[in-house]
Amino acid sequence: MKLTIERTALLTSLSHVQSVVERRNTIPILANILMEARDGFLGLTATDLDIAINEKVAANIETEGATTIPAHLLYDIIRKLPEGSQVELDYKSAEERIYVRSGQSKFALACLPQDDFPIMETNQLPHNFVLSASILKRLIDKTRFAISTEETRYYLNGIYLHTAETDGVPMLRAVATDGHRLARVETPIPTDAEGIPGVIVPRKAVSEILRLIDERDEPVSISLSDTKICFSFGETVLTSKLIDGTFPDYERVIPAGNDKVLELDGKTFAQAVDRVSTVATEKTRAIKLSLSTDLITLSATGADAGSASEEVAAAYGSEGMEIGFNSKYLLDITGQIDGENARFLFADAGSPTIVRDSADEGALYVLMPMRV
Amino acid sequence: MKLTIERTALLTSLSHVQSVVERRNTIPILANILMEARDGFLGLTATDLDIAINEKVAANIETEGATTIPAHLLYDIIRKLPEGSQVELDYKSAEERIYVRSGQSKFALACLPQDDFPIMETNQLPHNFVLSASILKRLIDKTRFAISTEETRYYLNGIYLHTAETDGVPMLRAVATDGHRLARVETPIPTDAEGIPGVIVPRKAVSEILRLIDERDEPVSISLSDTKICFSFGETVLTSKLIDGTFPDYERVIPAGNDKVLELDGKTFAQAVDRVSTVATEKTRAIKLSLSTDLITLSATGADAGSASEEVAAAYGSEGMEIGFNSKYLLDITGQIDGENARFLFADAGSPTIVRDSADEGALYVLMPMRV
Repeated sequence: MKLTIERTALLTSLSHVQSVVERRNTIPILANILMEARDGFLGLTATDLDIAINEKVAANIETEGATTIPAHLLYDIIRKLPEGSQVELDYKSAEERIYVRSGQSKFALACLPQDDFPIMETNQLPHNFVLSASILKRLIDKTRFAISTEETRYYLNGIYLHTAETDGVPMLRAVATDGHRLARVETPIPTDAEGIPGVIVPRKAVSEILRLIDERDEPVSISLSDTKICFSFGETVLTSKLIDGTFPDYERVIPAGNDKVLELDGKTFAQAVDRVSTVATEKTRAIKLSLSTDLITLSATGADAGSASEEVAAAYGSEGMEIGFNSKYLLDITGQIDGENARFLFADAGSPTIVRDSADEGALYVLMPMRV
Repeated sequence: MKLTIERTALLTSLSHVQSVVERRNTIPILANILMEARDGFLGLTATDLDIAINEKVAANIETEGATTIPAHLLYDIIRKLPEGSQVELDYKSAEERIYVRSGQSKFALACLPQDDFPIMETNQLPHNFVLSASILKRLIDKTRFAISTEETRYYLNGIYLHTAETDGVPMLRAVATDGHRLARVETPIPTDAEGIPGVIVPRKAVSEILRLIDERDEPVSISLSDTKICFSFGETVLTSKLIDGTFPDYERVIPAGNDKVLELDGKTFAQAVDRVSTVATEKTRAIKLSLSTDLITLSATGADAGSASEEVAAAYGSEGMEIGFNSKYLLDITGQIDGENARFLFADAGSPTIVRDSADEGALYVLMPMRV
């Protein structure tokens, strides 16, 4: 394998694939990137055995071939080369070394054989549909804060992607919950997505895909089976194993009869919650909402730190009540509200509260109260 | 004590003093800021018993008085208040509480008595002189990278500030070393600074003063005794204990007979060192310089990572030689070079090398070589 490539193009692709490589690996080849030069393109693949990212980048190929190279080391070297430079990659199979040359710089790096590199099979993914990058971003962005970090509840360690009906309309839904709060975001079902199985996409895959599509605005092709999901866009392909578990019947925790409606400016409310929670005890971060006609009073008390309170104007016409929340969870949810107005639907101080976003009726949040 | 103050002014001063407060304190009052309202000013003081920072800020004082308030908590509260707001501080001595009010927000915080707050005496500092902030910044900036972090060599854990003669001219000098490299930066001695004792200013004081003068450009009044140093500028006063130890006779390690002169572009050289050192073993970061007429070749070899080399154009007319350095130390020193040109003065592969800066003849660096 011998080729020449623009430093900037190589760096961009390396930055896309190398982030999946763990810093410490017990299996040496997992620290490497698979490089394949063929048909005018250099293909880069990195994997941690759960996720694989592949990207193709145009290169001037003199001799086709393939090998694997230490990922972070190569990335650091290319990053430190001057902008605008050309990089020559020259693999000598007899020495199991690749020579990297650019300007006055020369590097010789030890390679590992390409045959040892684990390839994640992506044939036979029976379901295929397309989502715009912005809709996929919304589904992930607004739900992932609620993903559980408890390893024993592994089936909650991802986003549950599935189909469901809302008022008779078929929807594609993303749901995440950690038992304290739940986020459910939906979009009208894309063509060909009807009949897909419900799958749980793990947290790391969710973060990686979000990072990769963040700068894009193009259609994302999604393929999936019961065990794998694959996202393709431009020259990038991310494949991930799915979480092998059953997502709980989350509909049961979304209350239907909450009839006390509070509407207020989400941003003003969030800032007040942030201020008042400053004195709250580190452990519970508890904050109390006291609701009366068109006014809510936030208050918090710390162990020895003192106390705080703040009044926030709001539209509220039901009978007065008091309810407590973990202020961090409250801020996580208000942080997802795009529009000016947030709508809270309460039942009583001991029952789950629903939060809606006036600018996105497809988003619904449920928050468990706490005793204060 | 009761007063009103602009949120922005209070926040600025709090940010200046609170950074000296440690996150964990076994003595509760050290987590607090002393607040003294008097003569139209609010005085804020924080200390960790080694360093004290005091700053005065104009306030609208209704009742004079003093108390102490949890530093980080108050800082967080003031930070979260909206820009442009006014803050009322109302201390009720009977309750040992201060009431903080701003807009719709109210906070009650537990205070500790002002009499328990440790005051660092700054009377009777016999030596007084003035330095411009920019010169003080230069003395600190260009030497502090070489401060030792070895706690057993406590007398190297700071910058040695003292007077000395260079070619018969009296100078104020800042010196730091960790035994592997040494930085010596000097400035013509300011009026009144002759006859000051040599003092070792501890690392934390050095960082704090640098942080405080970074945004300023005004004269700094420096007072010192054998045990304390005090920096005053504007409405800010930083007082620090000095390290009670003897700084070694550093002149002995600055070689006089290094006659092999290498001149090169410091920035180009630093970038090449950075690139080549990418493959060097993590532990030693060793890099080799091979000098020949008007050319140096940098090279490094890693355990299994591979090898690297790069040629850098340079002016060199002495006999060829090879010498090894820790690349991190080399980068620390070249990072201090302001001008385009760095001048290296070598003796041989086993002796200390001198580095000079063409743009700052008052700066001198010594670097110990290593076997490669």
